[in-house]
Amino acid sequence: MRDKATAIVAIAGTGLIGRAWAVAFARGGCDVRLYDSQDGAAESALTAVEDMAEELHRADMLGGATVADLVARASVSETLEAALACADHVQESIPERVEIKRAFYALLDDLAEPEAILASSTSALLPSAFTEGLRTRHRCVVAHPINPPSLIPAVEIVPAPWTDPAAVERCAQLMEQIGQKPIRMKKEIDGFIMNRLQGALLQEAFRLVEDGVASPDDVDIGIAYGLAPRWALMGPFETIDLNAPGGVADYVDRYGGMYANIGKSQGRMPEWSGALLDRVTKARRYVLPLDGIADSQSRRDKRLMALMRHLRDTNTDE
Amino acid sequence: MRDKATAIVAIAGTGLIGRAWAVAFARGGCDVRLYDSQDGAAESALTAVEDMAEELHRADMLGGATVADLVARASVSETLEAALACADHVQESIPERVEIKRAFYALLDDLAEPEAILASSTSALLPSAFTEGLRTRHRCVVAHPINPPSLIPAVEIVPAPWTDPAAVERCAQLMEQIGQKPIRMKKEIDGFIMNRLQGALLQEAFRLVEDGVASPDDVDIGIAYGLAPRWALMGPFETIDLNAPGGVADYVDRYGGMYANIGKSQGRMPEWSGALLDRVTKARRYVLPLDGIADSQSRRDKRLMALMRHLRDTNTDE
Repeated sequence: MRDKATAIVAIAGTGLIGRAWAVAFARGGCDVRLYDSQDGAAESALTAVEDMAEELHRADMLGGATVADLVARASVSETLEAALACADHVQESIPERVEIKRAFYALLDDLAEPEAILASSTSALLPSAFTEGLRTRHRCVVAHPINPPSLIPAVEIVPAPWTDPAAVERCAQLMEQIGQKPIRMKKEIDGFIMNRLQGALLQEAFRLVEDGVASPDDVDIGIAYGLAPRWALMGPFETIDLNAPGGVADYVDRYGGMYANIGKSQGRMPEWSGALLDRVTKARRYVLPLDGIADSQSRRDKRLMALMRHLRDTNTDE
Repeated sequence: MRDKATAIVAIAGTGLIGRAWAVAFARGGCDVRLYDSQDGAAESALTAVEDMAEELHRADMLGGATVADLVARASVSETLEAALACADHVQESIPERVEIKRAFYALLDDLAEPEAILASSTSALLPSAFTEGLRTRHRCVVAHPINPPSLIPAVEIVPAPWTDPAAVERCAQLMEQIGQKPIRMKKEIDGFIMNRLQGALLQEAFRLVEDGVASPDDVDIGIAYGLAPRWALMGPFETIDLNAPGGVADYVDRYGGMYANIGKSQGRMPEWSGALLDRVTKARRYVLPLDGIADSQSRRDKRLMALMRHLRDTNTDE
């Protein structure tokens, strides 16, 4: 890998995820080449990158960089070959269909620089599903962000069984270099880490509604106004580690029995359908009609930007 | 219940939880009487209330109240009878042992004003475990906060099978009046809502470590730097409702299959012991020696105060 200031990143696929990655890599000092097989798509993405940079600048979320820096570091490549020439890292964000990924990775296998890391943004496919037959499959990983990666730092680096651990590490180090927070997964698993954790929470949320214990709104209160603020400062393990004088072992000694007891009724997975889904839908539509979703998303995005800045500014770990 | 400005609250038991409740009720405009069966305990608590009020004032977390307001609204009662006289609401925070609770509620049953709500701060006991034999059991609830209630708004209101729904509602309304966020539970269940949700997340966190998928630190990254910021703005149902153009039904249509698939391997509850607990403990002690826990708690508390203020100030719902 090149020096911090000159790592070259090819963004393959320039939809919402690809362009947010372009912002994240350019903000982190990388030279970024945008490539999309659709005519004109990369050019549109480049304009969007500038708009996103302006918005992040207004929110003081460009780190030490300026909008002009980001614009200078990002360019459109007319061909895949041009995007890949000298690239240290390829961030692939093309459509989520396995046959499309397979065909595209066959191209990357031949055309990418021999030492380049090939990283997929897929949220739905295991890396083994589209890299098995490749000559250079050892350098393929999934690098799955929480959208948008220009705002949310966590990114899970997922190896296939044949991925070289050094490729995971190089990908993770590049992510750290640009200010992301990589999760170094040791093996692939459906849902990776974050969707599994989110799924576990959602299953309990649906169970509580199905069992008539609380309404969807009340479940949301328990998370937003109760548990999540601490989790936004530290994960669940650090949270319990700090909630007993003797750390996590002491916490488990005090409360492990309670959680084991609760766990006995958490093995059943409710069906998210029929009357249960109707109840959740009705509760949500009562507080927010469908035609209000876009406005709420926009308000959420503004609050999220402000929150990420607040969390960054008060984080004395770093 | 009296007028907003003059609701009278008896705080029975003045340990860490009781005194934080005293701050929350006094900040919300209530007259607060502190009672503790241990000599001198209520007096110490009153001093602590003043200290907490000063700290909240410095952090701009006293709402429209001043430290002097809070001090004027809180007083020590020498006897339980004096604390209960004219009290609209009794917030009980005595030790978490069922026989102690039973004996104390037998006293409250006779001594509290006939219309007063009797609310327990217990996190571990179901309300039915210590109120069954009471003459006035219909007005007993659990009102369980996330500690400290002076900072974290969520409080779960839990009825026993014999609790009058009007008692849940009156308790919830008082909580709203003082600025807390009540969860109106429809029935009691082990762990209530919040510990069940936290437990579901922890079970998956332990499973991921046990299965060798990721380290405890990496799980924490996925929550703190990935999922939790959104959850701190809104709960899990609102989160998924805003993550598809057609709301929650559309989201489930798109991703329900993925979560159902993940769910197949989330029914097993790992044992939080032996080699698994050792791995988590080692990971935590590697980043934070035991003698650093107190400092980390103090740093967390400062960040949490700043975060709660940020979330309050950017919340345009209210």
